[in-house]
Amino acid sequence: MEVLTGNRIGLEVAAAVEEKRLWDRHVALAAYGRRDDGGVNRQALSIEDIDARKQLLEWTSKAGYRAFTDAIGNLFIRREGRRPDLAPVLTGSHLDSQPAGGRFDGVFGVLAALEVLHALDARGVETERPVEIVVWTNEEGSRFSPGMTGSAAFVGALDLRKVMASRDEAGVRFGDALSDVAAAFYDLPQRTLGFPVAAYVEAHIEQGPVLEQSNCLVGAVSGIQGTRWFSVTVTGKAMHAGTVPTHLRKDAFKAVTAMVNALNGLMMDETDTTRFTVGRVIVQPNSPNTIPGSVIFTIDFRHPDAAVLDALGDQIEGICQANSGGCEVLVEETLRSKPIAFEPSVVERIVDAARALGVPHMTLPSGAFHDAKSMSLVCPTGMIFVPCAEGISHSPEERAEPDALAAGARVLAAAIVDLAQA
Amino acid sequence: MEVLTGNRIGLEVAAAVEEKRLWDRHVALAAYGRRDDGGVNRQALSIEDIDARKQLLEWTSKAGYRAFTDAIGNLFIRREGRRPDLAPVLTGSHLDSQPAGGRFDGVFGVLAALEVLHALDARGVETERPVEIVVWTNEEGSRFSPGMTGSAAFVGALDLRKVMASRDEAGVRFGDALSDVAAAFYDLPQRTLGFPVAAYVEAHIEQGPVLEQSNCLVGAVSGIQGTRWFSVTVTGKAMHAGTVPTHLRKDAFKAVTAMVNALNGLMMDETDTTRFTVGRVIVQPNSPNTIPGSVIFTIDFRHPDAAVLDALGDQIEGICQANSGGCEVLVEETLRSKPIAFEPSVVERIVDAARALGVPHMTLPSGAFHDAKSMSLVCPTGMIFVPCAEGISHSPEERAEPDALAAGARVLAAAIVDLAQA
Repeated sequence: MEVLTGNRIGLEVAAAVEEKRLWDRHVALAAYGRRDDGGVNRQALSIEDIDARKQLLEWTSKAGYRAFTDAIGNLFIRREGRRPDLAPVLTGSHLDSQPAGGRFDGVFGVLAALEVLHALDARGVETERPVEIVVWTNEEGSRFSPGMTGSAAFVGALDLRKVMASRDEAGVRFGDALSDVAAAFYDLPQRTLGFPVAAYVEAHIEQGPVLEQSNCLVGAVSGIQGTRWFSVTVTGKAMHAGTVPTHLRKDAFKAVTAMVNALNGLMMDETDTTRFTVGRVIVQPNSPNTIPGSVIFTIDFRHPDAAVLDALGDQIEGICQANSGGCEVLVEETLRSKPIAFEPSVVERIVDAARALGVPHMTLPSGAFHDAKSMSLVCPTGMIFVPCAEGISHSPEERAEPDALAAGARVLAAAIVDLAQA
Repeated sequence: MEVLTGNRIGLEVAAAVEEKRLWDRHVALAAYGRRDDGGVNRQALSIEDIDARKQLLEWTSKAGYRAFTDAIGNLFIRREGRRPDLAPVLTGSHLDSQPAGGRFDGVFGVLAALEVLHALDARGVETERPVEIVVWTNEEGSRFSPGMTGSAAFVGALDLRKVMASRDEAGVRFGDALSDVAAAFYDLPQRTLGFPVAAYVEAHIEQGPVLEQSNCLVGAVSGIQGTRWFSVTVTGKAMHAGTVPTHLRKDAFKAVTAMVNALNGLMMDETDTTRFTVGRVIVQPNSPNTIPGSVIFTIDFRHPDAAVLDALGDQIEGICQANSGGCEVLVEETLRSKPIAFEPSVVERIVDAARALGVPHMTLPSGAFHDAKSMSLVCPTGMIFVPCAEGISHSPEERAEPDALAAGARVLAAAIVDLAQA
C-alpha cells in the first residue's frame, strides 16, 4: 500500500535527523540579535532578521535547493520533487522575534524544516512533490502590528497597501523596511503570492506548559482555539481618597475589581479548557491618595469551541455593565477570531508518525496564533508542538531541550515525507 | 465679660472682610505658575513660588507689618499686638501647588489670613497678642517628598539634614532650591524654628464634597482622621494568556481582584465614615495576551477613630494573604498617622463665630493632611473649611465660590480676634 510505503520511507528519513546539528543551529541563529541576558531581539525586517535569513541560505547553498522570495518578503527554499509540476508541501515558521524574545519561538519550525531537507538528502529520497522550507515575514507583530503578516498576505487576507503604510514605533514604514530586505535578496527570483500549496506543516514550541506537565515530547495540534479580545473603559471620577465619602464616590478601580471577579466566576470551567485573562490594566491618575478616575483593562478570552466562545463572550458586556458601581462603562470587542480545526488527515499523519517513532505524544489545541492559522484557509494544514520549559515563551528564559527538538523534527520528517508522496 | 467683648469686636472685624478683594487676589496669585488649562503649577521653592511670596509681601508692604523667614523658608508677616512679648496667634497655609493644581488649595488660607489683617486695620483694632500670617514651605510634597515640610520642621518633627539632602525628580537638592528662596528674601530677618505660638487657625478649601452636599458655607474642623497606607506586592508568573490552563496559572491580577473585593467588603460601613481607596495599581508586564506576573497596589485607609483604624487596618494583611491565589504576597505598611483631635475650645470658637455671623456651618473631620496637623502638636489648633465644587481638588478644575471664601474669611477673622485677645 502507498501509505505504508510512505510511512516506511518517512521513518527512515526521520532517523536521519541529527539532534546535535539541529541544536547547534539554534545556538548559531541566536547570535543574530543576541541580548545580554541570553535572549534574542531580532525584530521583523531588521538587519538581524536579514542576517539570520542569509545564514539559513548559506546552510542550504550547497544542497542544490532553489530559493525564492515574494512581494511580502517571505522566503522559500525548494527541494525539487519527482513531479515539479505538482504543488509543493510547505514546512517552516518564522525567524523574527519579540524584542525580549527567546531562541526557539519560530526558529525551531524553520530549522526543523531544514533538518527534514537534510534528512531527505541523507537518505537519498526523491519525493513525488517538491518540499519547501518557508520563512514567513513578521509573525510576531511586535515591530509592525498586527503579526502573521507574511502568511496572511500569502493567503490574500490582508490589504497590502495598508500593510506597506504601517509604521513601527520609530516611524519607519513597513514598505521601506521591506525594501531593505528585498535589496538584501535581490538575486532571488520572485514568486507571486498565493501559489498552490499541497499541504503545510509547522513545527513550533508549545509556548504553554501542557506537554511538559504531561511528559510528552510531541503534540499533534488539533487546531487553534478561537479568541475574543475586549477593551473595557471604566470612567468614574478622580477625587481625594481622604475626603470623599463612599456614597459620593465613583471609584473606577473598585468597579473593575467587581467586574473582573464576576467575570472570573463566569469563566470557571471544570475541564480547564477556557482561557480568560485580564492582562493589561491602566489606572488614572494612579496616585495612592486619589480615587481612580478611570481604568482601561483588556480581556483575552479563548476557547476551542465556537459555541462556548459566543455564549460566554456575549455575556461579558452585560456583566461589566452590571458591576459599574455608578461609573460609565464602554466595552469594545477589538478582535474576534473563530476556532480553527486543522485538517484531520494531517493531524492523524502526525499522530501516526509519533506512534511509529515511539515518541510520547498527545493531541492538544494551540493556545497561541501561528502562521498555520493563515495557511489552514488554503490547504490541508497541521502543526507539531514540542515542550518548552514551564511553558515560558516570548522571554529570554524560553528554553527547549535538544531531545524534544529532535523528536519534533523526526515526527515532522515522517509526516512531510508522507504528505509529499500523496 | 472678656469673651463677649472679644466676640463683639470679632464680628466687627469680620464685617470688614472684603469679598471682592479676597477674590481678586486669588485671581492675581493664580498668575504665578498659570497653566494653559486654567490651573496652577507652582511647586515648592520654584521661581513661581518665590514670585507669589513677593506678591504677598507687596500687598502687605504699606501696612507697617514686619516679615520674617526661618531656616526652612517659612514666611511670617506680623501685625503687632498691644503685648509684643506675648506669643502670637498664627493663621495661614501654603502657596505651593500640585503640578496640575488649582487656584484655591493653600492660597485661600494665606489670603484669608491677609484679609484678617486688613480687616483689623480697617476697624483700627489693636489685639492683645500679635497676629501673624504664615506661609509654610512645601506643603504639597509633590516636588520634594514628603509634604508639610515647613510646618513639620517648625515643630521639630523632621531631621533637617535629611530634608536638605532630598532631591526632586530633576535631581535638584532641597537645600539648593531653598537657598534660592533665601537669596530672594535675603533682607528678611531670620527667626528660629519652633518659637512659641499661642494658637494656630488655618482656613482651607474642604477638598471633599461634604460641605457642598450639606449646603454649608463653613466647616469647623474637628480634627484630622488617622491614616494607614499600605503597599501590596503580589508576585505570580507571567505566562502566555492563550496557552496556560487555569490550574497552572499564578495570575497576579486575578489574585488582586479577589483581595480588593474582600477588602471592600471588610471596609463596608453604614455610617460612611471609613475611607478606603486602592488608588495606584501597577501591572507587569501589562500586555493584553500575557498573564500578569506581578502587581503592586496601594491602600489608603483613613478613619477618625484610632480603635477602628487599628482593628480594620490590622486585618488587611491577612485578607491579602488569604486571597493570594498561589502568588507570593508582601504587605508593607508605608505610613501610619494617628487621628488628631483639634483643641475643642478652638473648634468651639469657630462654631460660635459662624453662628454669630449667621453662616450655615457644620462640624466635620478633615480627610486630608494639612499643616494644622503639625501645629496641633505644639499649640491649640483649629481649621476652617469652605466648600469646593464637587469636592474636586489637586486639579485645574478646583473651584470655590467668592461668597464661600468670604464667609470662611469672616469666621476666621472673628475666631482670630477672639484668640488674640485671650
